Formats: sequence, structure tokens, C-alpha cells
Amino acid sequence: MDSLFTYRKIDEKIISLLRSAIGDGNVSSDDEKLISFSHDEVPSSSYKGHYKAEALVFPESSNHVSEIMKIASENRIPVTPRGAGTGLSGGALPAFGGIVMSFEKMNRIIELDEKNLTVTVEPGVVTSEISKLAARHDLLYAGDPCSGDASFIGGNIAENAGGNKVIKYGATGAQVLALEVVLADGTVTWFGGKRRKDVTGLDFTHLIAGSEGILAIITKAVLKLLPLPRHSVDLLAAFPDPETAIAFVPQIIKKGGIIPASIEFMDKKALELVEKYLNNPVPASDAGAALIIQLEENDHDVLERQYEKIGALSKEHGASEVYVADTRSTKDRIWQTRKAIPEATSFFYDRYTKEDLVVPIDRVPDLLAKIKEVCLERNLQWVAYGHAGDGNMHCTVIGPDTEDWHEILLIVQKKIYSAVIEMGGTLSGEHGIGFKRKGFMKLFLDKKHLELIKSVKLAFDPGNILNPGKIVDWNE
Amino acid sequence: MDSLFTYRKIDEKIISLLRSAIGDGNVSSDDEKLISFSHDEVPSSSYKGHYKAEALVFPESSNHVSEIMKIASENRIPVTPRGAGTGLSGGALPAFGGIVMSFEKMNRIIELDEKNLTVTVEPGVVTSEISKLAARHDLLYAGDPCSGDASFIGGNIAENAGGNKVIKYGATGAQVLALEVVLADGTVTWFGGKRRKDVTGLDFTHLIAGSEGILAIITKAVLKLLPLPRHSVDLLAAFPDPETAIAFVPQIIKKGGIIPASIEFMDKKALELVEKYLNNPVPASDAGAALIIQLEENDHDVLERQYEKIGALSKEHGASEVYVADTRSTKDRIWQTRKAIPEATSFFYDRYTKEDLVVPIDRVPDLLAKIKEVCLERNLQWVAYGHAGDGNMHCTVIGPDTEDWHEILLIVQKKIYSAVIEMGGTLSGEHGIGFKRKGFMKLFLDKKHLELIKSVKLAFDPGNILNPGKIVDWNE
Repeated sequence: MDSLFTYRKIDEKIISLLRSAIGDGNVSSDDEKLISFSHDEVPSSSYKGHYKAEALVFPESSNHVSEIMKIASENRIPVTPRGAGTGLSGGALPAFGGIVMSFEKMNRIIELDEKNLTVTVEPGVVTSEISKLAARHDLLYAGDPCSGDASFIGGNIAENAGGNKVIKYGATGAQVLALEVVLADGTVTWFGGKRRKDVTGLDFTHLIAGSEGILAIITKAVLKLLPLPRHSVDLLAAFPDPETAIAFVPQIIKKGGIIPASIEFMDKKALELVEKYLNNPVPASDAGAALIIQLEENDHDVLERQYEKIGALSKEHGASEVYVADTRSTKDRIWQTRKAIPEATSFFYDRYTKEDLVVPIDRVPDLLAKIKEVCLERNLQWVAYGHAGDGNMHCTVIGPDTEDWHEILLIVQKKIYSAVIEMGGTLSGEHGIGFKRKGFMKLFLDKKHLELIKSVKLAFDPGNILNPGKIVDWNE
Repeated sequence: MDSLFTYRKIDEKIISLLRSAIGDGNVSSDDEKLISFSHDEVPSSSYKGHYKAEALVFPESSNHVSEIMKIASENRIPVTPRGAGTGLSGGALPAFGGIVMSFEKMNRIIELDEKNLTVTVEPGVVTSEISKLAARHDLLYAGDPCSGDASFIGGNIAENAGGNKVIKYGATGAQVLALEVVLADGTVTWFGGKRRKDVTGLDFTHLIAGSEGILAIITKAVLKLLPLPRHSVDLLAAFPDPETAIAFVPQIIKKGGIIPASIEFMDKKALELVEKYLNNPVPASDAGAALIIQLEENDHDVLERQYEKIGALSKEHGASEVYVADTRSTKDRIWQTRKAIPEATSFFYDRYTKEDLVVPIDRVPDLLAKIKEVCLERNLQWVAYGHAGDGNMHCTVIGPDTEDWHEILLIVQKKIYSAVIEMGGTLSGEHGIGFKRKGFMKLFLDKKHLELIKSVKLAFDPGNILNPGKIVDWNE
């Protein structure tokens, strides 16, 4: 695989070069550590091979990153940048061994600039720390991945992480104004600036966002902030079945006349799994499906009128019950249910394929129907949940208890993917392609498009040392 | 210039190839037409050379564009895509002759999709037609360049046009979900889709936005729509001087707790010029400077409270007078003043340099001070206006009545640019680099960054036939 490129194995000489460049304490080749830094949240059972870093580095500065890249490029060593390891596509998997670069030590919030409504951070800052700091200044950082309490902002940017507020604010990339990056040869440069507009050159800032570390390594980011909405409320609307719940989604915007901050969907299986996992009753767990609708406003009365309107609309469109959460604890309870679904799924099952499909919003009902059809055909269970408001569904198909579960899930995936393509959808909305999905790229993108990805990759990284083995397959 | 690449001149054989590919009526080599399609809104006096197309083509479909590109790539002929010719950086100038491709005939709004809140358009649609159609469906197309009544959407996307609502909604690129493009070799492909999220591959959609036609030719675009805000109001706040007006800008967001749809600035000279040009009194023309603040809300009472609050804040921060425009005619009167500034300037002067500088919002006062200082040093007049809310100022320095006016303006520009760089600003916020500004790129971007632009350009267009002579100078 990727045999067009050959890499040098890491030996004692390279280790000592790294040590003298960034300090002994910032380089490790301890086997246990290598193993624990050689995967993300994709279960290793999803892959047939085994992948392990040969060296770990913990840079403390952009200069350290630059020094490491100089050594790597001169010696043809692959480098896999790694955030908190919460990724869901094997993006941080060292597919060709080499160096795994952890950003744990580059975890400073450098500046919160109230005048320019920006925050400047290093890549190893935990995402929720940014939101919390902003909130203390009555400001909003609008990136909100479900993993935000653990994930690093650098990983969020590299994956263009989505999450719960994309429908209103866009994904992580939309929050980024500027990036300091280190290129494959060790050059440190900036794309963008503390500026709200910039057409000076090509928009490399947003090309890097979502490029999964294959073009450049992010070492600083300037993110935009917004005034913090003064009030918010979460509605949990229980529906008799998924079809009724999903059919209501477009009506929220159309008849409500507003874009909610979130519209999240959970099917019955998701609600049940979470209840069992948390060992605690969850709201609406007896419903056939549920929607979480988050509304934000500066004016309390307007918010109240809004949620009453949306609540009444829900009932008109088939909701059996609408819970209103307007205190911290009731809101947390609702979101805990939503956020625990992936954990609950991986707690109870280890043979599954977790999808990140995205379709035009009005095709979500068709997507759910297709998944149901394909699973029933094979007598498989599935969990359906996700960001209904932006058409991005994390459907998880549970594999059978048979030896050939990998092959069966592959057949199921391909059937679902064909339908997604026909619907105008695509393979990944926010989790990324990484190692896990690259084999499916040719189903979704035409040959010329794939060639362009390769050409742009080589324009940035001619030796293919930055996170090789991700997004594109060079042998195809 | 760009001597690394050589191009074939257009002869009768090429003309007849073009005619048979897209029809006789869609190809012209009429000299008068060639001249009128060989410039944009940058006055020809800004350039020392003369530039003229050798052939004009008027494709009617993506297929036509593809056929033209096949002929162009096989014969090494430069192709300059052209919208309505309202550009402000010489982006549509045929710097190496060759083919100018006009999109006048690809002017259909293909679909307005209320379920997915999208509109799909051809590149030759006039921008305001999209906004008007959306509004008839209670929807908002949020791209709003000042030239929107004349400019084509394809040009807006190619330039990542900004305008009056960037502070709230982002520039044109932020409205784009997908692009159908024709590549240099004639391949037709899609980047993105009718999807709110997409991390399948690299984000080429937003790389093409703002790439000024050097990477690919846009032949269709899917744009996002939003619910139309039900009510809006424009405040015109008159201030005694530019400093007081500009100092108030960050307070609007900070103390007001909201992001207005627009915050526009006009200095005394701008107000006077427009009054003289329109030959009609304009509001606040006796003020030292003025701000237009546009507020939008769904709730009328909330809007009223908001504009009362912002009005009172304006007074507290030194406004002598605040006019409230809440009817079509009063709003139009305010915006007519703002939008007529460029026209008025070019009506009264033909020796000037119109800048598109962008700085961090809090440095706008420093930028204005610098421009004043540099102009006073040389005894030059200047007009200062622009998008104060996002730090993008269109300062226009008027050249002296001397033979060496080109050289003097160049000295002035370089002084201003040095200061802009020190402030963390950049060369162009929304007008683009094009032909006009490419010589200044090396002041703002480092060598490696410029090399990356070239490499990515060649990854898309190895023969450099797509709008050559723009953004990058190959001889540097």
C-alpha cells in the first residue's frame, strides 16, 4: 500500500537527532506508550492490520515542530500528527509507523482578544476550555463537537469537526480565521490573520481545515468569537416513530422562521442503549424517536414565544410529548443522553460500522428508510442518531456474531453508499476519511477529482511524509 | 512577464474550431466587442500596457465551456473567464490576450429548493436576482456585494466578494455549498453538493471561491439560503470626525451584545462627493463622518429596543445625530449614499488608487490615521469609506495633477502597506489581487507561501492557461 513512496525506519540515530532537537523528555520510544498513541477511537477490530508508531514526540513549540519536520523530511520519515485521539476515522493511526507527534504539551490559550472577538490557541488546547474561557467573557466559541470535553482544537480543525451547532454556525473550519502551520520541510508560515476577510492569495486557511494533517501541521489557530446568546432552551420532543420525527425537521425552520442552534435526532434503539448504559432513566426513552431542538436568543420573552411556537408545532406534527429544559441540570440530562450514544454503542458491541453519512436535509427520511431496509434484509440491528438539522446521520450498523462479520458489514455499507450517492449525499460529514474510509473514496469522487487531491497533496508535501495513508490511496 | 509559459496566438483555424464547437453566434472577434470585453472597473489609466482579447466566447452550457477548454488546452491558449465586468482588480483583464469567456448566456436560476434552503444557479445570474427570488420565498441570500445589482454570481464567487453583510453572514464563499467546475483540460466535475457538511476529500469548493479563475471555471453553484429576517432597520449616525465614528464601532458589538448585519463607514469627503455627484442632499452630509448600522430581527419590538439602544449608545459615544430608516425609501436613500461613493470618486477623478485593505477591527483607527498622515505629507486628497465592521476599508488616494502621479501613488501605497503589515492586516479583503495587485503580493506573503500558490495553481492547471497573469508573478 502506498508503495510509490518508501520510508526510512527509525533507528537510534534518528532518535538521538530528535532528542537533541527537542530535548530528551520530549521523545519516547517506550513500547507501551507507542501502542497507546497508535490509535484513535476507531476500534482496532475495524482494521485487519496492526499499526504502531516507531517514535513519539511531544513538541513544546512551533520551533520544535519545525525541527522535527526537518529531520523527518531529510530522512524520509512519516509523521502522524495527533490530537487527543478522539478521532473517528483512524486519522491519527500511524499507517506507516514513523513518528507520532502529540500536541499535549502545546496546550496554551495564547490570547483572548475582546476587541477583535478572537481567541488564539495552540493545537493541544481541549476544545471545551476555549468555550469556557469565551463564556467567562460573554463570548461564544461556536465550534461544538460532541467530543469537545476531550478533543483538542488542533484535531477539530484538522478534521473540520462538526457537532451540534453546525446548522446555525457552521463547522469548525468556519470558526477559523488564521492558522500558523509547519510545512513538510519544516518551514513555519501563516495562512490568514486576525482578519474577518482576506482574499490575498488562495484560501489555504480553509484548505488546511479538514485536510487531516496531510498538507501541513497546525501549530497555532486564530478562531473567531461571537457575542454569547443570553438565553437558551433545549426542547426534547418525543415522537411515536423515526419517520414522524424526521418529517418534522424541515418544518422547524420553515414554519418556525428561525435556524435553531441544534436539531438532533435519536431513534428508539439509541434511547434504550443509553438508558441501559447509564443505568438511569433517560427522557423520552419509551418514545419511538426523539428530537433535541436548541434555541438561543438574547431576549427572554422572544425565546419563550419561540419555544412555545416550536413546541406547539411539534405537537401538530405528531410529537406525543415535549420536554422543555431551561436549567443547567435539565439541559445536561438531555445532552448527556445524546452524547452518550457512541459510548453506549461501543460498550455493548464491538462489531459495528459507525457511519457519518450526509445527505440533503430533505433526504434524511429516505436515508433512514434505506438503512432499515438493508439491515432488515440481513437481520441486523442498527442505531440511528445524528445531526438531523444538517443531514448528517451517524447510523451504526451492528455486525452479526459470525466470522464473516467484516464482509457482511462491507456489503451493507456498499448498499447504503449507493443509495446515498443517488440521494446526492456523501461519505463523511464530519468524522473524516482518514484510514478508515479511504477505500470508499472512489465510489463518491470521480477519478479526476481524486487525482486533483493527490496533486494538491504533493504540492504541499512532495515526499508524502505528512500523515501518509490517509484520504487517498496512491495505488488506485 | 510570465515568460515561463508561451501561448499560441488565435488564428482563423482556432476561431473556426471554436465556432464549430459552440456555434457561430457564440464566438466573436469583432474588434469593438473585443475592446469592450477586455477590461473591468479598474480604469485603464491604472496600467501602463494595453490588453485585448483575441476572441470572445459566449458559452450556453457547461458542455460548451468544456469544449472551449479542450480547444484552449490542446492549443495553449489563455482563457480569461468574465462575469459582468464589475471587478476591481483587473481579474477579467486578458493579460495575455487569448480567449475571454463571457457568462452572459449562462444566466439561469436553475432551482430554488425550499426544503433544503438552497438555490442552484449558473454563473451569469445577476446577484440581486438571486436575492429577489429568495425574498419572494421569505428566504435570504446573504451575499451582498455593493455591485450586486450588476455583478454576476460567478464573478462574486471567483473573487469571494464581500460587501455589506460580511460581519454577520461571511463573504460570498461562506454562502457556497457546491460548485460545478470545468478544469483546464475540459473535465467537468463537482466539488461539494447540496449538503451542509462535507469532509470527503479536501475542501476544493472553498479553495475555488476567491481563486479568481486561475484554478477552474465555475459553471454552476449551489448557494445556501436562510430564513429572511422579518424586520430590519438602518441607522445613520453622524459623528463630528472619523476618529469618533470609528472608535464607536467595537462598542456596537460589545455593549450592544449583537452582531449587526452591517456597519459601514463614510468620511466627510465621501459624503460631500456623493452629494455633489447625485446633485441632491444626502443625509448627514455636513457631519465629519457617518456610520450606517443595519439591524435585523424577526420580532419588531426586539428590533425597536435594539435600535433605541444602539441609537442611545451612539449618542453616548459622540454621535451628533442618529437617523432611523425603517421604510424602503429612507433605507434606499441611506444606502444610495454609501453605494455611490466609488462611482462619484471615479466621476470626479481619474488618477487615484482605490484600496481594499483589511486590518484587525481594532486597528481601523490606526489605519485611517496612517492614511491621513501619508496623504497630508504629500498634500494629497483622499476618500475613506468601507466596511468598518469587518476592518475592510476602501481608502482611495487621489493622485496629483503631475506627470509622475503613478510613481507618487506607488510611494504612498508602499508606505500605507508597510503600516498595514505592521498592524496585522493584508492587501485585499474582497476586491481580489488580480492583475492590479499582484506586484504587491511579495510584501504581504512570504516566499514559501507564494511558491505554494504556484504549486497548487499548477496542480490544477499545469499549462497555466486559466486566467494567467493574475495573483502570482511567475518571474519572481
